Amino acid sequence: MAASSNLPSLKTAGSRHFQDNGFMVSKLRHVIESQQFTLPLLMDLFHRSRGMERVVARGGTLEYQDKILANLFYQPSTRTRFCFEAAMYRLGGKVLSTEQASAFSSEVAGEQVEDSIRIIAHYSDVIVVRHPQAGGAQRAAQVSSVPVINAGDGEGGQHPTQALLDLYTIYRERPLVGLSVAIIGELDRGRTARSLAYLLAKFDRVKIFFVAPPELQMKPDILTYLDEHGVRYELESDVDRVIGEADVIYQTRIRPERLRDEQGRKRYAIDPALLRKMKSDALIMHPLPRTVELDKAVDEDPRALYFRQAANGLYVRMALLTMLLDTE
Amino acid sequence: MAASSNLPSLKTAGSRHFQDNGFMVSKLRHVIESQQFTLPLLMDLFHRSRGMERVVARGGTLEYQDKILANLFYQPSTRTRFCFEAAMYRLGGKVLSTEQASAFSSEVAGEQVEDSIRIIAHYSDVIVVRHPQAGGAQRAAQVSSVPVINAGDGEGGQHPTQALLDLYTIYRERPLVGLSVAIIGELDRGRTARSLAYLLAKFDRVKIFFVAPPELQMKPDILTYLDEHGVRYELESDVDRVIGEADVIYQTRIRPERLRDEQGRKRYAIDPALLRKMKSDALIMHPLPRTVELDKAVDEDPRALYFRQAANGLYVRMALLTMLLDTE
Amino acid sequence: MAASSNLPSLKTAGSRHFQDNGFMVSKLRHVIESQQFTLPLLMDLFHRSRGMERVVARGGTLEYQDKILANLFYQPSTRTRFCFEAAMYRLGGKVLSTEQASAFSSEVAGEQVEDSIRIIAHYSDVIVVRHPQAGGAQRAAQVSSVPVINAGDGEGGQHPTQALLDLYTIYRERPLVGLSVAIIGELDRGRTARSLAYLLAKFDRVKIFFVAPPELQMKPDILTYLDEHGVRYELESDVDRVIGEADVIYQTRIRPERLRDEQGRKRYAIDPALLRKMKSDALIMHPLPRTVELDKAVDEDPRALYFRQAANGLYVRMALLTMLLDTE
Repeated sequence: MAASSNLPSLKTAGSRHFQDNGFMVSKLRHVIESQQFTLPLLMDLFHRSRGMERVVARGGTLEYQDKILANLFYQPSTRTRFCFEAAMYRLGGKVLSTEQASAFSSEVAGEQVEDSIRIIAHYSDVIVVRHPQAGGAQRAAQVSSVPVINAGDGEGGQHPTQALLDLYTIYRERPLVGLSVAIIGELDRGRTARSLAYLLAKFDRVKIFFVAPPELQMKPDILTYLDEHGVRYELESDVDRVIGEADVIYQTRIRPERLRDEQGRKRYAIDPALLRKMKSDALIMHPLPRTVELDKAVDEDPRALYFRQAANGLYVRMALLTMLLDTE
Repeated sequence: MAASSNLPSLKTAGSRHFQDNGFMVSKLRHVIESQQFTLPLLMDLFHRSRGMERVVARGGTLEYQDKILANLFYQPSTRTRFCFEAAMYRLGGKVLSTEQASAFSSEVAGEQVEDSIRIIAHYSDVIVVRHPQAGGAQRAAQVSSVPVINAGDGEGGQHPTQALLDLYTIYRERPLVGLSVAIIGELDRGRTARSLAYLLAKFDRVKIFFVAPPELQMKPDILTYLDEHGVRYELESDVDRVIGEADVIYQTRIRPERLRDEQGRKRYAIDPALLRKMKSDALIMHPLPRTVELDKAVDEDPRALYFRQAANGLYVRMALLTMLLDTE
Repeated sequence: MAASSNLPSLKTAGSRHFQDNGFMVSKLRHVIESQQFTLPLLMDLFHRSRGMERVVARGGTLEYQDKILANLFYQPSTRTRFCFEAAMYRLGGKVLSTEQASAFSSEVAGEQVEDSIRIIAHYSDVIVVRHPQAGGAQRAAQVSSVPVINAGDGEGGQHPTQALLDLYTIYRERPLVGLSVAIIGELDRGRTARSLAYLLAKFDRVKIFFVAPPELQMKPDILTYLDEHGVRYELESDVDRVIGEADVIYQTRIRPERLRDEQGRKRYAIDPALLRKMKSDALIMHPLPRTVELDKAVDEDPRALYFRQAANGLYVRMALLTMLLDTE
């Protein structure tokens, strides 16, 4: 339940500065929160990601063949795990993998992520952590002698690499300045929605519509952050009222246990009827997996971008890995 | 429960034709059902498999080092999974692996194999699927941009690569034409038995004895197929009546939940007494794992071929992977 | 429950002898029990392990890139598994991995490790087994055509590679002859404690303090072995009485289910108060994971060696793998 705003800032803890071509840019040490990405870092990342599209098309590289990535997933997520592993493979590297690390930690009451990380850092060159508690990735980074990547930490935590690939997907299609984005779903506990909001706040004249039932709306820590950074946003409970204004429709899941009424959940769903109300060049995105909130009929719509979004995850994570593994 | 006969034919869906040395042969796109293997494809596969025996003896190859195989197993099967992964490694490639993918799909009600495949196809060059429902592999293939291999899809579905390695094992020992084969076990739901029957039907003058308790006998879809292809077969419930006639004894499991009476299950077991009734040059096969239906005392018999059968799985799967990964 | 003393001796079963530079040394075939390591073998192992520290610092080697290691873990242990896998990767090799193999064997009642090993030996060059029963690794070795490494077999079994890395950690810091070692914890079922005791017995003038509640003390099979080899030991239930005498304090877990009284468990814990009673140059070790028996406050003490111990696991396992994979 610890809000990420209680964490020490990663702008200092998670990066160090060095001179590069006359510019002061940040060298990434860990990837914990999306706030830590400055605009120069984002542009470096997106530039590298474009390059990775070409690298993959040529069959990958062997440049990182002496590097090992360790996936420490305390909660299973086959797609996110496969994406990081494929990214490491396309770079030539090796992978240590857990599908469900909590199986072994249940054996040992009091088992702490810190001890596991201290050990696994001796066996690998970069560690990807999915942890059930907000702040879990930060705890890991604080004791790790190798870079740590947050692959999701708890409800109400973050999932920064998802937000980075989301933003890259938009960047590939549209100027980021002046963008209007509707983020729909169970926003109070949505890691991807939270991480994306932090990133969008970096760009001028962005407007965000947070669309959710009032009891699942975005939490004050994010809204305060947006206020402080002068970002315009609206809280909305009716999809229809904003859907025609948004350049990007970012849909996320509403789990049945959070909104028991299925009709209620469907009121937030993207279906053929809602498609007709969207801008003709809107971008429809979803972090997947989906349930009822994204009708399969949408798949055929040329505005549907969510499978390309998943594909972009590979390039962005490859780029991130090179930024973490490259030592000057 | 959907019988595979309801599926669209893979003779067209699963392959495309091209000219090769003046012969019209099929290029494999997916491996879903054993019926899709024509005789020329089988001969190509077996020729390549022989070559792979030599490749492995020399320590493998690095030829496919830029390729990634993804194993998407919704049901665990360590041996089949290891066999595919070792095949990919001996070819020089990389592996994405799930031991039990259903752990994550339970998290998301309504999770569909199609969405997972669409995403994983961006992270890999070939996908191996084990799915709990008959037709699951075909559903995967229909949306995949990379080749899909069926590693078992449901009770009453198929397990074509098992049948291919079974047939290769026989081919290494004996002419396939005119063969007499006894297939024993829980045949109504036996994927390996079903897939093997389809393959045997391709060879002239084959005779199949289906040996099972009447309530577990082979289902009509297979028998109709054999009738249509002029293959001789007999349905038999007494092992003793056919065991002396068979060139190949293909034993499979009878699970206790299907035949509660242990004495009944043992009536179909291969034990030293039954060994004495077999032909002196019979081939004793089993897809493994085994329970009571195959006595450990049989392991020492020179006719026991089941561990070599498991070893052949490596060569046949290597050969299959090259057929799927090679682009003209 | 089967005591390992009932197993056939591995001095003959697990190794064969050959001439090397005029010396008769043992060629390792399997690693099952720590007793099988002669002094020359230990010295060879430690010499290779030192070399591996340099190999890793240089980014590893590709020398074993055609080799496959299979991890067959019937019980999960992320750290031990990752350590073996990282060792294989740093040597250039490939890895087949199970996080929890018992999931699939539960499917098949009567499933035997022997059948699995016979098959997996066709798919790999070395097999690492963690088995829930003492003697499980030995059973695996007896049928395997490739080397088998015991990564822990049951309560009351052994965990020889843990003991080897423990001893290597001491060897890097201190002469092994004349050493005084306190081994603390749930000793009757502690695999690591048992395996370490066997190894310490090889060195002259060693003295071992076994410190445990009387009902969890070391079992007679080990004590008899020490008596036969002239090794001095004391059974002690009070940590305070021996802590000031020991050169090495080897702490292990006491699980709540073995000693329900938490105050009782804490009586065996290493905490700041106990630190003050230790020798100023004592070595504090623990196989990890830890619970209450090793206070986190100890981590900052310069005598705390347990994370370096975990790091050494990589070098020792790399060295072991080369000893098993190198054919003359």
